[in-house]
Amino acid sequence: MTNVTDQDRVLIFDTTLRDGEQSPGATMTHDEKLEIAELLDDMGVDIIEAGFPIASEGDFKAVSEIAQRSKNSRICGLARANFADIDRCWEAVKHAENNRIHTFIGTSPLHRAIPNLTMDEMADKIHETVSHARNLCENVQWSPMDATRTEWDYLCRVIEIAIKAGATTINIPDTVGYTAPVESADLIKRLIETVPGADDVVFATHCHNDLGMATANSLAAVAGGARQIECTINGLGERAGNTALEEVVMALRTRNDIMPWHTGIDTTKIMHISRRVATVSGFPVQFNKAIVGKNAFAHESGIHQDGMLKNRENFEIMRPEDIGLSGTSLPLGKHSGRAALRDKLETLGFEVGDNQLKDIFVRFKDLADRKKEVFDDDLIALMTLDEADDHLQLVSMKVTCGTGGQAESTVELEVEGLDKTATEHGDGPVDATFKAIRAIYPNTARLQLYQVHAVTEGTDAQATVSVRLEEDGMIATGQSANTDTVVASAKAYIHALNRLIVRREKAGPGADAREISYKDLT
Amino acid sequence: MTNVTDQDRVLIFDTTLRDGEQSPGATMTHDEKLEIAELLDDMGVDIIEAGFPIASEGDFKAVSEIAQRSKNSRICGLARANFADIDRCWEAVKHAENNRIHTFIGTSPLHRAIPNLTMDEMADKIHETVSHARNLCENVQWSPMDATRTEWDYLCRVIEIAIKAGATTINIPDTVGYTAPVESADLIKRLIETVPGADDVVFATHCHNDLGMATANSLAAVAGGARQIECTINGLGERAGNTALEEVVMALRTRNDIMPWHTGIDTTKIMHISRRVATVSGFPVQFNKAIVGKNAFAHESGIHQDGMLKNRENFEIMRPEDIGLSGTSLPLGKHSGRAALRDKLETLGFEVGDNQLKDIFVRFKDLADRKKEVFDDDLIALMTLDEADDHLQLVSMKVTCGTGGQAESTVELEVEGLDKTATEHGDGPVDATFKAIRAIYPNTARLQLYQVHAVTEGTDAQATVSVRLEEDGMIATGQSANTDTVVASAKAYIHALNRLIVRREKAGPGADAREISYKDLT
Repeated sequence: MTNVTDQDRVLIFDTTLRDGEQSPGATMTHDEKLEIAELLDDMGVDIIEAGFPIASEGDFKAVSEIAQRSKNSRICGLARANFADIDRCWEAVKHAENNRIHTFIGTSPLHRAIPNLTMDEMADKIHETVSHARNLCENVQWSPMDATRTEWDYLCRVIEIAIKAGATTINIPDTVGYTAPVESADLIKRLIETVPGADDVVFATHCHNDLGMATANSLAAVAGGARQIECTINGLGERAGNTALEEVVMALRTRNDIMPWHTGIDTTKIMHISRRVATVSGFPVQFNKAIVGKNAFAHESGIHQDGMLKNRENFEIMRPEDIGLSGTSLPLGKHSGRAALRDKLETLGFEVGDNQLKDIFVRFKDLADRKKEVFDDDLIALMTLDEADDHLQLVSMKVTCGTGGQAESTVELEVEGLDKTATEHGDGPVDATFKAIRAIYPNTARLQLYQVHAVTEGTDAQATVSVRLEEDGMIATGQSANTDTVVASAKAYIHALNRLIVRREKAGPGADAREISYKDLT
Repeated sequence: MTNVTDQDRVLIFDTTLRDGEQSPGATMTHDEKLEIAELLDDMGVDIIEAGFPIASEGDFKAVSEIAQRSKNSRICGLARANFADIDRCWEAVKHAENNRIHTFIGTSPLHRAIPNLTMDEMADKIHETVSHARNLCENVQWSPMDATRTEWDYLCRVIEIAIKAGATTINIPDTVGYTAPVESADLIKRLIETVPGADDVVFATHCHNDLGMATANSLAAVAGGARQIECTINGLGERAGNTALEEVVMALRTRNDIMPWHTGIDTTKIMHISRRVATVSGFPVQFNKAIVGKNAFAHESGIHQDGMLKNRENFEIMRPEDIGLSGTSLPLGKHSGRAALRDKLETLGFEVGDNQLKDIFVRFKDLADRKKEVFDDDLIALMTLDEADDHLQLVSMKVTCGTGGQAESTVELEVEGLDKTATEHGDGPVDATFKAIRAIYPNTARLQLYQVHAVTEGTDAQATVSVRLEEDGMIATGQSANTDTVVASAKAYIHALNRLIVRREKAGPGADAREISYKDLT
């Protein structure tokens, strides 16, 4: 699957779990990482960059477990240019049937200056570290960070060294997202023409979207000879994010007439994973986002695009079904049975066992009693709620609010088996409720994000609330869906708190936070 | 301002109010259109496409009033290829000191077939309509819709006809957003080389973002010889939207080393207008949107990008200040005075008279009493609340909700001078409240969108709620900000209802809805 079998095949390297996950606030839990990795594996991603193993115990465990579970994808970990990083990376990825070590170093004058290495000394370091990685793993990716500011001759020299030392993929990152398509194509093309041995390796492109051109730059690099695109779901990533997987994949598919390359992605899985990544990261997708935005396939006048596209023989037409958006979406109701529910869940991308179906059916009936029509989005919200972690559980709550003064909230929680109640006042029902929870379970977590989405239309819509808490550098995100926004808010807050508690207990204070950033210069 | 004085100047043609406003759900009110037009005019947009005058009375009035008020920008209206459209367009734009008629027709075989015109007949029609427009207005833009599917020879022939008939700008639209940069550059270049008279007119590019490449395609068209980019704020528009103004402008500025063209845009106004368009359209901007996303300038490690950019002499660095994001943003508090408030408002892009300041100061004090720190975003929310339209006003409300059954809401409204109260139950506090409002003021409006944003961090954050209602094809959006989410929801709902009432009264049932879409084939 991950071997380049023909020259027209473009490998998709997904870094949602590494470059995406490190965007401020997008931190995922261990279980969320496993779930996303499984979806990536299932949709045909060639290489999954699962994390930066030396950064923390949590990163190491996630990469290891993803490596053990992977079925089709090659599992990759990141490592700086030193033996400790590379060894730790190998310890994590070695469990995968197909694995990769991705090691990098900044090659520009600025990056050589910080560890105070001469050109020759850095060249030696590259030779040593890539050789070391290759001795451990038959598949090694090497990246010259800050490539575009590296002296041309030196860049060619170090790439040649990396290839000779055993690198099988050479990745050219546009770390600050400032490149333009013509430049992107030209750089890869010239490197392939110039560097001895370039024909024996795969060149990769890694773009950021700071000027809104990551997709075009990635595709231009492919035109220049790159055969691996590094990307993330929804373009998740620091600042304006990385190249969006869904955009490059659908562009290659739709405009295969002028971009005659193909990927191994099952595009019908795009919508489902896009929603899951949006939910677990707390990074919503804007309505007018290409491919996966709520409006991407919505036309004011249906006639229009039909008219435009009819008989359009020179390229593929994008249809909602192609990305897994079901065209006709009949809502379920209180009289819908278990079989109908299972059918619907399957079309939405969820496969459920009999026991799980039993549980979900109870929750579905409960929802259908309160809502006339249960829409796809309602079911997605229902499915994506974790089972409660058991430290704190909401028993009951009662809130009074309005215009006549402060809101009052009485919350009853079960805290490790004991019932506790508190009543607090605050600026609005949510503030009062969060205060009551803090009165019962004192903590110093800071609210970083509070977000409400109505997942369906109508006033009886379920609201999905996301809450992100931060404490001592640890971040936890909680979600909940309920027709009562205030109850959903309380549950999301408790969910996030439970996760913080788990992280604290598992690893001691602060231990799950990254100790090392890949950006710490080596 | 709108004349091409040198070959390196790229004209910015903003169509937020025409192509952007027609995206499903983004409908703006008359006052909102005037406000956005004023901001566009003020930031240096060369041409504002203000609407499609024949589509409705509302469109006509908006274009006319924008034309009367414009200070710097050229005001343009859209017209199909017939005299009635063109005359109506001229009636609206003639009030502007600088004006333009933009007329278009679909030139591909498919589009010729629907009105059943031969090539020669359509050529005659183009000659007649462009000549007619030019007799009215010295500045005429003509677009061959579906240009890319039009036979090459015929495309050249009709463009030549339009130029001879007096068109001063030729716009080449990528209506379905499927083009790629190489194609985009090549098409413009070949047209300019081939069509007689091409050197005497400005070629324009109009791209859509369906494959995520609108920005790159627009800039490629400029490299091919186009000197006008058609775009919208935040990339607002149908489906995946139009080219984003902020992206093309900042890309040209940042990478002027390889794209040696400039615009007349004051980039420091970008953030303010981006926020206003997001608010009035109800289309939020995702965190990782290029340039204007909340995270666009957020780095996990400050050192990193600094390191990457230090000494980077070959291109301009984008700084938050360049787009009007104030770097240091000290919050105000209850002890802040009127002068501090005015200063802060000015840095945020709001200029206020003394009387207005007095009003805002009262609201600011009220907020500061409830919140420890008043952030920039709180002030923006405060400033962007309309004065109430007077039909319905919230007098008081009291809501009880929680886990023990249905929520109960008692709402007291002043309805045209009379106090009315209702108590209703519902699924959650928002549902119960909306039901109570409907009990007091019965209506058939359907809730299309319900959205909550916490505008600042912390549990005492103000929540901004957007509500979009639809009734008989008329759409109205209401907003409100309050530290109590439920109160904000009620106020936003009432705000939207008030707007619906105004629209109904002004124009009779359905009259403000567009009667004609520009997509209705001529």
